[in-house]
Amino acid sequence: MAKQLNSYLHKVQYYETDQMGVVHHSNYIRWFEEARTELMDAIGFGYARMEEEGVIIPVLSVACEYKSMVKYGETVEIRPVIESFNGVRLTIRYEITDAKTGELRTTGESKHAFLNRAYRPVSLKKQHPEIYELLLDLMENGVKAEK
Amino acid sequence: MAKQLNSYLHKVQYYETDQMGVVHHSNYIRWFEEARTELMDAIGFGYARMEEEGVIIPVLSVACEYKSMVKYGETVEIRPVIESFNGVRLTIRYEITDAKTGELRTTGESKHAFLNRAYRPVSLKKQHPEIYELLLDLMENGVKAEK
Amino acid sequence: MAKQLNSYLHKVQYYETDQMGVVHHSNYIRWFEEARTELMDAIGFGYARMEEEGVIIPVLSVACEYKSMVKYGETVEIRPVIESFNGVRLTIRYEITDAKTGELRTTGESKHAFLNRAYRPVSLKKQHPEIYELLLDLMENGVKAEK
Amino acid sequence: MAKQLNSYLHKVQYYETDQMGVVHHSNYIRWFEEARTELMDAIGFGYARMEEEGVIIPVLSVACEYKSMVKYGETVEIRPVIESFNGVRLTIRYEITDAKTGELRTTGESKHAFLNRAYRPVSLKKQHPEIYELLLDLMENGVKAEK
Repeated sequence: MAKQLNSYLHKVQYYETDQMGVVHHSNYIRWFEEARTELMDAIGFGYARMEEEGVIIPVLSVACEYKSMVKYGETVEIRPVIESFNGVRLTIRYEITDAKTGELRTTGESKHAFLNRAYRPVSLKKQHPEIYELLLDLMENGVKAEK
Repeated sequence: MAKQLNSYLHKVQYYETDQMGVVHHSNYIRWFEEARTELMDAIGFGYARMEEEGVIIPVLSVACEYKSMVKYGETVEIRPVIESFNGVRLTIRYEITDAKTGELRTTGESKHAFLNRAYRPVSLKKQHPEIYELLLDLMENGVKAEK
Repeated sequence: MAKQLNSYLHKVQYYETDQMGVVHHSNYIRWFEEARTELMDAIGFGYARMEEEGVIIPVLSVACEYKSMVKYGETVEIRPVIESFNGVRLTIRYEITDAKTGELRTTGESKHAFLNRAYRPVSLKKQHPEIYELLLDLMENGVKAEK
Repeated sequence: MAKQLNSYLHKVQYYETDQMGVVHHSNYIRWFEEARTELMDAIGFGYARMEEEGVIIPVLSVACEYKSMVKYGETVEIRPVIESFNGVRLTIRYEITDAKTGELRTTGESKHAFLNRAYRPVSLKKQHPEIYELLLDLMENGVKAEK
């Protein structure tokens, strides 16, 4: 079974531009989040479920490399891919391309931990095995078509 | 005793501009909030106190008229003035001018209610008389110099 | 032929929430813009065309009334309707409802002028008759289904 | 002569929080920019001068590590330091601490190039020697007290 990469489309908004006539660089960090939450939704581990289970996934770090500029009027495609996951830490890589031409715009990365409601680290494997399996499967097989 | 108007300075940030080369119109709504919270701090009724007393002040409406454009490199002065207050509802007027030239940039208004922790309306006069007096005094006399 | 209202869906993003656990009130102003530009695209008068013709449509004023709060996990439907248009000034009304329940969240309004590249007012009727007709038709008949 | 580090204060705004009750992680990228432009202003190479000389300084990459969370009601101190500069590339490191307690909140980095108005790389050393000297001096000696 071939990997099925999740991909998320974002139409650039006017309020995202700056006076250089391109999207302000801080917005890509927000687009990463959009794609990430969409990905979590897609595997059945969206925010509502997360809240219900009492799992918080803070951002430990982000990094972003700007390859070419995105302009108003364009739509970008954001592909988040699980780069590593061990039940305690999660690293997601992002690739942003122009949705029409496929030209690479940005690459980036975010790192995450898993906390409980008391903001203490949790081991998903032990305490939330079902979520652990979902994320492991996502890393190994991507998002399934039938989802 | 003369009225002492509170005034708040905001240096325009690059990320607040849009590709028309001016500050994006949505940011003025945020500047109103900056000036409003500064005003509340100034009369000793800042967020920490508000939380402690269990009073929430949601925004019921905002309005903003753009008179002339604000650009990067400029600093604006925002003057919030209590237009009306009756213990149940609060209306604040804002005037944004260029800090250097005094040229009028924007006028606006926000309306607010007072809720308790259960999101039910409260009468400040009955339930939080000290805050009621603070706001009444603010409306009538402005921010005191000695504060 | 019945009026065909344009409607625009926006999925609430996590970065749009504030610590009250709801969407920050400044974001609705941005959603109005999203719906407005979508509407302009829909009638064939998007940003690219506007630039080509040298027409700038600044925001003269905005107003927004918050009826009920929008939360993360929800999707809103934004309906912009041309309230008035005379070739020189344009007023757009907005209604934001919950996409699932239809519950009213927000109503608002934005007013606009038409300027040329030199930031001087233009009369669309005289100088850009085709755009004038497009907007007049939009006001009278809404967005056509066949578009 | 001791190095004089530039430091910039930012009071957290309510609209910068998210529903986790802390500052949304994308805002730190904006704070880096605030501190960076303040630094450039401090050495006499602010945006107006940059425009006049026709030098554009795009962001090539950003990275940010979140050490502890920043909350509404707090003020942060942001210290940008030139980590490397060779006339063609510039790397700035940032340290964000709580202004009151000094507790470390965030560290980060941004990388920049220098372009002319035609978006072509320029060598500051050859084409803008005065700016080159300013930045070199900033890297070696920090911001002077007498500035």
